[in-house]
Amino acid sequence: MKSLTSRDNPFFRQLIKLEDSVRQRRAVGLTLLDGIHLISAYRLALGPPKTLIVSESGCENMEIKRLLAERGVDVDLVVLSDVLFREASPVKTPTGIMALISIPPAATIPVHKDGKGERGEPFCVLLEAMQDPGNLGSILRSAAAAGASDVYLSDGCADAWSPKTLRAAMGAHFLLRIHERSDLVEVARAFNGKVIATTLKARISLYQTQLTGSIAFVFGNEGAGLSDAVLRATSEQINIPMLGGTESLNAAAAAAVCFFERVRQMKKIPRSVF
Amino acid sequence: MKSLTSRDNPFFRQLIKLEDSVRQRRAVGLTLLDGIHLISAYRLALGPPKTLIVSESGCENMEIKRLLAERGVDVDLVVLSDVLFREASPVKTPTGIMALISIPPAATIPVHKDGKGERGEPFCVLLEAMQDPGNLGSILRSAAAAGASDVYLSDGCADAWSPKTLRAAMGAHFLLRIHERSDLVEVARAFNGKVIATTLKARISLYQTQLTGSIAFVFGNEGAGLSDAVLRATSEQINIPMLGGTESLNAAAAAAVCFFERVRQMKKIPRSVF
Repeated sequence: MKSLTSRDNPFFRQLIKLEDSVRQRRAVGLTLLDGIHLISAYRLALGPPKTLIVSESGCENMEIKRLLAERGVDVDLVVLSDVLFREASPVKTPTGIMALISIPPAATIPVHKDGKGERGEPFCVLLEAMQDPGNLGSILRSAAAAGASDVYLSDGCADAWSPKTLRAAMGAHFLLRIHERSDLVEVARAFNGKVIATTLKARISLYQTQLTGSIAFVFGNEGAGLSDAVLRATSEQINIPMLGGTESLNAAAAAAVCFFERVRQMKKIPRSVF
Repeated sequence: MKSLTSRDNPFFRQLIKLEDSVRQRRAVGLTLLDGIHLISAYRLALGPPKTLIVSESGCENMEIKRLLAERGVDVDLVVLSDVLFREASPVKTPTGIMALISIPPAATIPVHKDGKGERGEPFCVLLEAMQDPGNLGSILRSAAAAGASDVYLSDGCADAWSPKTLRAAMGAHFLLRIHERSDLVEVARAFNGKVIATTLKARISLYQTQLTGSIAFVFGNEGAGLSDAVLRATSEQINIPMLGGTESLNAAAAAAVCFFERVRQMKKIPRSVF
């Protein structure tokens, strides 16, 4: 198979644009997955990707060979010289394989057990102006692991489908319905259950709050927190109690703590152990 | 006050080296704090920094002016042209102020309530080959908020004192004793209490495990997890139960979930609410 070696090749130029530009990704509805893990997670949920892109040396990798052998007839294969692949890849030490995919509409994602938690109650996450793609990806990953079905992102959030966010979420994108550019006030008002925000000033603790049942958690911008409008649309405000000399948690860490307090309550672990 | 404008200035060149090179930071025992928040956290715990570095336009900022006015006679002040400041700063949108500090030895950190948790029991964190500075910083931040006293890092961890780790930890460095290049097997064996690792295969859940008392949590590399040697030196292995279609959490999210399950158990919140 012939490999692309020219920077002027239109396909290569498209990859670079997709890598760099949220506007381009949204205009054409495409993005890039880097590495076998993300590609496998995508395939498991949504079937084969449009195109697989492999580096010359990636062609020699056993795992990549296996993936290519199983790829199905509809999947295009493009081989790039190692130099071009490294330029197009979103990671510093590229794994040798990428996939070009259509960004899936939220409704096409086959959410865990009909989009409901283990016991059938809806569990959603609302994020306002979450700016760091690493934080956003980590929150998506924790939300999927805790059984959430839907994540609503306001305008001003990092692009959910950027290679950075995809990498941090490790495949959670294909287990959650992600609704970008949502009106969070509208979503919160329409939600049939508790809409809970964490704030430093709240008097009720996370651990005093019933989190089984229908729950939406709301988290705000890393620096500024939640806007007044979104805060007013919540039904409860809680705090995460701290024991140390600081009251400071990373947004993704705070979200994980909240999500897994819900998991703990849903699991109804017998208390006999302690 | 005259500002530095030349890239050949030895002080400016030192800043660039400190910014870029862990070897340089370790050789001279210095690092850089960017922004008022980090500088204030340092000063609160350890007193004034060696040198404050301000950009020309930073000199006009009210908050920075106040900080400079209070700085004390022993603190050197260096003004950089905006161009040079931007080059020396570890962040994309510099705040206009940095501090040059000596990396504090672990023993000099005034840990929360004599280095013990709210009820006097030691609480430590061991990290093996944690490679992402963002994850490392987030774990330090969560550990400080949950009342940990000591964090032990193996060889192969990201540099705890890099500007990236410092930024992600938001001042937690000055509330924790951080022991770099530790032999974790030795630390685990010498620890007088439970040494707990999370693994996917463990049969006992986090929520079935008593976490009050003397606890050390151990977390491994983001990809490879813990080495066999460190795993053998733990006293308990537990899992974090998941409800979703995945069993995957970011290392910093998993750490936050474990730390705050300890906080929940230590707080002994009345259960009357649900």
